[in-house]
Formats: sequence, structure tokens, C-alpha cells
Amino acid sequence: MPSKDTPLNEWDLINALSREFGPAPPGVILGIGDDCAALAGNSPDCLLWTIDTLVEGVHFDLAYTSLSQLGWKSLTVNLSDIAAMGGAPGPALLSLGWPPARDRGQALEFAAGLAQAAREYGVAVIGGDTVASPGGLIVTVTLTGRVPAAQMLRRAGAKIGDLIFVTGPLGEAAAGLEILRRGLELPPDLHEALTEAQLRPRPLLRAGRLLAKEGLATALIDTSDGIATDLYHICQASGVGARLPAAGVPVSPRVTAAAPHLGRDPLDLALTGGEDYLLLFTCPPEVAGRLPESFSRAGLAAPCSLGRIVAGDRVVLLTSDGEVDISGKGYDHFRLDL
Amino acid sequence: MPSKDTPLNEWDLINALSREFGPAPPGVILGIGDDCAALAGNSPDCLLWTIDTLVEGVHFDLAYTSLSQLGWKSLTVNLSDIAAMGGAPGPALLSLGWPPARDRGQALEFAAGLAQAAREYGVAVIGGDTVASPGGLIVTVTLTGRVPAAQMLRRAGAKIGDLIFVTGPLGEAAAGLEILRRGLELPPDLHEALTEAQLRPRPLLRAGRLLAKEGLATALIDTSDGIATDLYHICQASGVGARLPAAGVPVSPRVTAAAPHLGRDPLDLALTGGEDYLLLFTCPPEVAGRLPESFSRAGLAAPCSLGRIVAGDRVVLLTSDGEVDISGKGYDHFRLDL
Repeated sequence: MPSKDTPLNEWDLINALSREFGPAPPGVILGIGDDCAALAGNSPDCLLWTIDTLVEGVHFDLAYTSLSQLGWKSLTVNLSDIAAMGGAPGPALLSLGWPPARDRGQALEFAAGLAQAAREYGVAVIGGDTVASPGGLIVTVTLTGRVPAAQMLRRAGAKIGDLIFVTGPLGEAAAGLEILRRGLELPPDLHEALTEAQLRPRPLLRAGRLLAKEGLATALIDTSDGIATDLYHICQASGVGARLPAAGVPVSPRVTAAAPHLGRDPLDLALTGGEDYLLLFTCPPEVAGRLPESFSRAGLAAPCSLGRIVAGDRVVLLTSDGEVDISGKGYDHFRLDL
Repeated sequence: MPSKDTPLNEWDLINALSREFGPAPPGVILGIGDDCAALAGNSPDCLLWTIDTLVEGVHFDLAYTSLSQLGWKSLTVNLSDIAAMGGAPGPALLSLGWPPARDRGQALEFAAGLAQAAREYGVAVIGGDTVASPGGLIVTVTLTGRVPAAQMLRRAGAKIGDLIFVTGPLGEAAAGLEILRRGLELPPDLHEALTEAQLRPRPLLRAGRLLAKEGLATALIDTSDGIATDLYHICQASGVGARLPAAGVPVSPRVTAAAPHLGRDPLDLALTGGEDYLLLFTCPPEVAGRLPESFSRAGLAAPCSLGRIVAGDRVVLLTSDGEVDISGKGYDHFRLDL
């Protein structure tokens, strides 16, 4: 428990706010603590609702992010929250804090990037707010979505014995960030793929809907903070632990190839690097056999297995040197670490 | 038309974003350009949706605003947008950009102020986002609401010949801001009332519902930017003009009393001072006679008349020295003018 004058981490702050705001009233299916809030509607669908703020100097650096890429990312990080509930997206609002000295062309470039993502994923931007920002650029997008109530997937729901899967190889966005921050030059194909993973996330809406519709997952989250943290969120919400054999962690081959250039351990990037925006989910063993075919039928690559849900409350990595507790070791969006 | 490298004002930016995002799809009853967006639901009610960001150094100064007052205001400015559609509030999300060096007690104080407003107006805060802010505090609240579709009031709808009303006397919040900014000492009662008007706005949800339910208004907006601007928004949306006799503008007697201390013209504060968060509306002459009784029955003070809707596209003040075009003369939230 931090003392009254200790700086807060994100988790402390969310907990403090939750306590202050009290329990959610009837009609609120899901309150503070998941990827989206969820409201009961007059139809079998729930209304999903999420908000994400990107702050210059914390979440992006315009030295290596174009305004168009920022526009794209500001919507797609929200879309990933909708995917993480098994939902389909609805309309969005934008609140833009703009430094008055930045010119008009840049605002249009930002809007064009956001509009491109909106068209690609079928989202209407229907309102918002524009304010001056005396510091850097601040972008907040709030997005709705829909999911049939009976299909909605949450962080809670993982059961002891469930297998853990992720929809793709890990660590690319974190490797891309290292390359961009440090201005490194890697072989062109590798450079391009890794920096794209960082700058142009592709929310996995089809995979999320598939998991929800076909009842393939017991718990679901998107990988925004690195799986050591994201999986810990599933464990905390579900009241379980997890064990991951280090040799089975699906590190992206591109990350392994880039690691010598970065001087970073590829496994560390895969486990603690944020912003891959993949889907991490748990699946009962008797259902897991259906995953490859279901994904293939939908034109999607089969998910990668990476461990098992166990009794307890920790995320433990099984290495050749023994067991390592990696619970919550990842990127804390609330810390300033640029 | 500003050139490509001219700094934007709020209006230019909103127009540029609107063009980029294109027309709203079916199901969106109201897109960019009103106090809220509105979505069709599966019931006779529309879903209202708004977002407002408050940035330290632009919208508030912690030298004279307590964290608790900021929490209160961050929700109530959104509630005023729901009132301005004739709606009743639903749940909210909070996105909080917090400077990591600010201590825990202050976050709790902020949350307590927000929670107090939430209880007072029956709002559940059901989720959000917390991020680090390298500059000052950034608070974004997004709020839903509901209004029967047939009752919803918009900025558009004012007709030539309609009378213009506002729900209370003008200029108090702007006078309060002057007192706070300049650290002035006024007679205690006056000081207290005017600074409270600035720091603790009270959204007029009951008045908004009354206007909507009883069909008393043709167009409605809340007074956030000063009525010279807010009325101009009604005129632009409705394709009309407005004429206001200067002698009939309901300047708050408190503003008149404070004016000598402030060295400001009370009429100027009333017309161009922002943040009163009253309701400004237009009403056909044949309906206007019902206003005092309807408001009285609801336990509310009768609205003040202040002019008439005319043909044209300007807001014109009628003074003893002639006519003055005051269209859009007010506080531009997008400019940095602290």
C-alpha cells in the first residue's frame, strides 16, 4: 500500500477511483476493470464502451510518428479493446488537444489517418471536442461496440486446466519501438515490419468475434502491456495462476532476428513489451482442438499455445534455471519512461 | 479561409475534421456540430453521447481550483451538454492524464469531487483510462444520456419570429474567473457567489427535460462560450439571425455589483463571458406565455427573455449608439489565452 505522498502507479489509481465511484448500478453488466465497460440494451446485444488517451511524450513521439500514423493508432487502440470483448465496433467520438502553434496541414494529416482507420474498420466518427493544449498533442478517442450478451468475453472466466493462447507471435511492436527510439538501421524488411507493428497496429476484430461467436474462449484480453502483465490481468480477474514454459513462448522470428541489433533479449521483449495488440485468451483443453480449423475457416492463422492456467495467483515462467515470477512485469502506461 | 500554416481556431478544426470523417451513417441521428451526438436505439429513446476535455493551464488553474472542484466540474460540464439536448444522463467514462509527481491524496480528492457530482446527478462512472501526463493534469469525461427521439432539442430549429430566452442571469462565471485569476477580494457574499459560479457549475438537467417534455423550445444550447457565441451557434445551425436589445440583456445583478471592482463592463461579461452553463433557447411567441407557469410548476425560476430570432445570419446587439454585430464574440476554448 503506497503512502499518501507516494506517486501512484496505474493500478493503484484505478483501484482508488473504483472505490470512490462505488458499485455499478443495475443495467451495467461490466464496470471498471476490463477492456470495455458493458451496458445492457433493449436488445440481446450489450453496448460496449471504451476510451483511450494518447499523450505526446508518453505514448508517442512525433520525431518518428507521422500525424497520419497517430490518427490511425488513436482509433485502432480503441478498436483492440472492442476486439478484446468479442465485439463489433460502433461509432466513436474524438477529443483532440492541439498545440495552437501546430499548423493546419498537420491537423488534416491527423484527421486523414484517423479517417482511414475509421473506413477500414467501419467506424463513424460522429462528434467530439477540440481544445488547446499548452504542452504536447493529446488525443482521446472513445468508441462503442456491440456484442450479444451471451457471447461477451471478459478477463474473468479462465479456469484451472485451461490452455493459454495468443493470436500471433510476440514482441514485434516493442522491438519496433526500440528501433524508432534509438534511430537504429536494420535490414530493410525487418526494419519495415517491426516499425509498422509499432506505428500501425491492426486490431483483431475478426479473431475476437470468432472466439466469441464459436464459444472458443473462457477469458480474453488484448496484449497492450506485454503478456506478463496482460496474462496477470486475466489471472487476477479470474482468481487463478498461469504457468508458461519459456521454451514455448511464441517469440516472433523477426524479434529474434532483430535482437542482436537491439542488444535485447528476445524473450524479454516478447513477455514484457507492450502494444502488440494481439488477443490473449484461455481455452478449455477439450475445445482447443477446434481452434486451428475454426481460425483457418475464417482465413486467420492458428493461435499459438503458450501455457496453462493453474491454481494460485501468479504468472510463472518455467526456465531451465527454475521458476520465475513474471506477474505484472511489463509496460505501465502510467509511468513516464520515455 | 486560413492558409495552410495559419494556426487553427476551434471552428476551423471542427469543420476540417467533419469533412474528413464524412457524412454520418444511418442510425446516427445527430453527428458532429451539436452539444451531443445522438444515436437511434431499439427503443423510442435516442442515445446521447458527449465528451469534454479540461486541460490544466487552459481550462483550469490549480492555484485557485481545488482538485475536488475540478472533479465536480469535469462531470458537470458534460452533464450540461446532456441538458442542452433535453436529455437525462446515463453512465460516464473518465480518462485521467495525471502528472506522476502529484501525490495520491490529490487523486483521491479529485475522485471524491467527481463522485459527489455523480451522486448528485445520478451518474455511474463505469470505466475509463489512466495515463501519465508529462505536462499538467488532463481530464476527459465522456457521458451518455437518453431522450425520447421526438422530444430531442438541437441547435437547429429556431424560426424567424421566435423569442430568445435564457434560464438565468448572465456573466457570473466570467466575473468569478476574473476574481480568481487576479486574486481580487470582493465583499464576501459577492465573492463567494461569483467564484462558486465559476468553480461549481450546476447543470440544468431539470430545465432541459422540462423544455423537451413540454415542447417549449424550438432550439436549445447550453451557454458555455458566452451567449454572443452560443446564440450564434443556434443561428448558424438554424439558418437565421438574432437581435438583442442591449437594455434587455439579463446581466446578473451580482455582475453589475462586481463590475467596478473588476474594471469590466458588466454587459461585456454577460455577452462574451463563458461557462455560465445556463440554457439558451428559442420559443415561438404563442408558446412563450406558458413558460413562467411551466417553470414555476417545476420549482424553477422563470427564464429571462433577451431578444428575437430574425431573418439573416448575424447576432446583432441593439444599443443606444446603433447596431453592433456580436456574432461569435466570445470565449474560444481552442485559443490559449490564460
